[in-house]
Amino acid sequence: MPSRENSNRRVVIAALPDDRLEVSNYAMEAAAVPDPESGQVLCRTLAITIGAGQRAGLQGSASYAGAPESGRVMGGSGIARVEASTDSRFAVGDVVRAPTGWQDYSTPSADELLAVDPSADPGELLGALGTNGLTAYFGLMDLGRPTEGETVVVSAAAGSVGHLVGQMAAIKGATVVGIAGSDEKCALLVDELGFDRAINRKVDDFRAAFRAATPDRIDVYFDNVGGPILESALFRMNTHGRIVCCGAASQYDTSSPGPGPRGIPGLLVNNRVRMEGFLVFDYESSYEEARAELAGWVGEGRLKPLVTDYDGLEAAPQAFVDLLAGTTVGTTVVRVA
Amino acid sequence: MPSRENSNRRVVIAALPDDRLEVSNYAMEAAAVPDPESGQVLCRTLAITIGAGQRAGLQGSASYAGAPESGRVMGGSGIARVEASTDSRFAVGDVVRAPTGWQDYSTPSADELLAVDPSADPGELLGALGTNGLTAYFGLMDLGRPTEGETVVVSAAAGSVGHLVGQMAAIKGATVVGIAGSDEKCALLVDELGFDRAINRKVDDFRAAFRAATPDRIDVYFDNVGGPILESALFRMNTHGRIVCCGAASQYDTSSPGPGPRGIPGLLVNNRVRMEGFLVFDYESSYEEARAELAGWVGEGRLKPLVTDYDGLEAAPQAFVDLLAGTTVGTTVVRVA
Repeated sequence: MPSRENSNRRVVIAALPDDRLEVSNYAMEAAAVPDPESGQVLCRTLAITIGAGQRAGLQGSASYAGAPESGRVMGGSGIARVEASTDSRFAVGDVVRAPTGWQDYSTPSADELLAVDPSADPGELLGALGTNGLTAYFGLMDLGRPTEGETVVVSAAAGSVGHLVGQMAAIKGATVVGIAGSDEKCALLVDELGFDRAINRKVDDFRAAFRAATPDRIDVYFDNVGGPILESALFRMNTHGRIVCCGAASQYDTSSPGPGPRGIPGLLVNNRVRMEGFLVFDYESSYEEARAELAGWVGEGRLKPLVTDYDGLEAAPQAFVDLLAGTTVGTTVVRVA
Repeated sequence: MPSRENSNRRVVIAALPDDRLEVSNYAMEAAAVPDPESGQVLCRTLAITIGAGQRAGLQGSASYAGAPESGRVMGGSGIARVEASTDSRFAVGDVVRAPTGWQDYSTPSADELLAVDPSADPGELLGALGTNGLTAYFGLMDLGRPTEGETVVVSAAAGSVGHLVGQMAAIKGATVVGIAGSDEKCALLVDELGFDRAINRKVDDFRAAFRAATPDRIDVYFDNVGGPILESALFRMNTHGRIVCCGAASQYDTSSPGPGPRGIPGLLVNNRVRMEGFLVFDYESSYEEARAELAGWVGEGRLKPLVTDYDGLEAAPQAFVDLLAGTTVGTTVVRVA
């Protein structure tokens, strides 16, 4: 067995956020490295990823992740190295996808683990080939279903899911318009990732800019934000348009979510628009097939994964704050070991 | 040619409503009976039907029916008798479905007409076998897709579309819950039409009554009203539930539509709910097949059409006001001749 630290550093929820998340909502603590029980595997966390949707998990019972509580280790997905195993499917030294949480060591059930190529980059495993990539893939392909020449708009377009959605829509031959939070992000989308157009949501007259960027209106709107941008998109949908409801980032980092979008249900009726929410977990039986296609696109250079790296477990709270403030791009990864 | 009055009485829009529709928003006028031009058919209106959605057509450009204007004859569908024809498909004396508008005589294009059984009751032709029945049918069967044992909730359940939706859901083996605007309507739904439960939306604690009436939550919500009832339903949807957006009656008879429903998009995501708007006209190629199935259910007594009759063209404005105030049930029909 490889050498192991004596202590398991963990990031716990110190206090649920009242409004915007702050680093002080978390605390570092140390505990004993756990021993795996029967059926469990001791995992050494190598890297974790953080997604905006995890902020919803701190709002209480409204989220699919269940009610949060102070003192609990912050949950999350990561890449880990097996350090001890009670299950014949995993051996010491294997590298796995695991529900590590924000801690050095965890003891998930072997059923929750998936072996990965130990030479692969954790940023890619957690981004384009991880939950972000799968979320983009199934949301766009199963619900959005863009066809050649249609206009696809994606919000939080430089974000963990959005930057992949736009590139996949381009692969399908759609005209792709991204909405992002800064001119720098917009330039990145158009110059590096092949988006046709990008709009800074903070410009003075967003609606006018949005209209100008969608001259043929919108066939598929992939919504990562909810709120006023969702409302603007509703008013630009083409007949038989599809709105893929993936997230509501505009509503996460606050104690007072805004009102619902105007125009519902009237605009849905008049324009025969479909609006559908999804969670990637429902597609688990198709993950393998999707990952193969995603890996193919990455290998061909048609899908360029963006990653923002943080170094050290102790940086995780700051990474989460930055992510919610919109200062990261692509998949946010914290390198733990 | 049968004898014909010399004058065509017409109900025109006198002034667009500022807020709630009033009878004074309309005026009766008399014009010459029109002569059919080439391709047209002179139709004598026998009966017209009025739907709540027509109120949206008076709100301006937001509706699929196009912008309204003062002085225009009020549009609408009816049953008519052919009095003169320039098209070989229709002969004098034939009875047809026609876009008659609110007037004694009209000259639609022959392409807009559909022959019907002259012995059939206009109330049934305009209700269960008309646009209301087709709307209920395609919305429920194509978008709602209830299966045996699921819970289907329909709002405006005693209304033109709603009373048919609930009965069709029962035919499909669903548990059916109606929401209506009075105790009398609720009793009618349960006692006469086979709804499992019905709730008066005007009770003091609607949300508690709604929860009690949907112990297994909601699989299909057929929405005819929008507004606060749509919001309540959103919070009661089961995983993978479907919301069929058919109408927004709560938003029609006002100059100040309310805010959008809270919980969008968060609830759609967490519960993987699909919300879809539709217009029956998109299903035109399947009307014949649907009418055959609807007629079969009516014949077997499994689908009981409700009709509220008004007598005389001059009663049409009052019928519309009553419909919007919720004092009619089923299909609202004005017998013109």
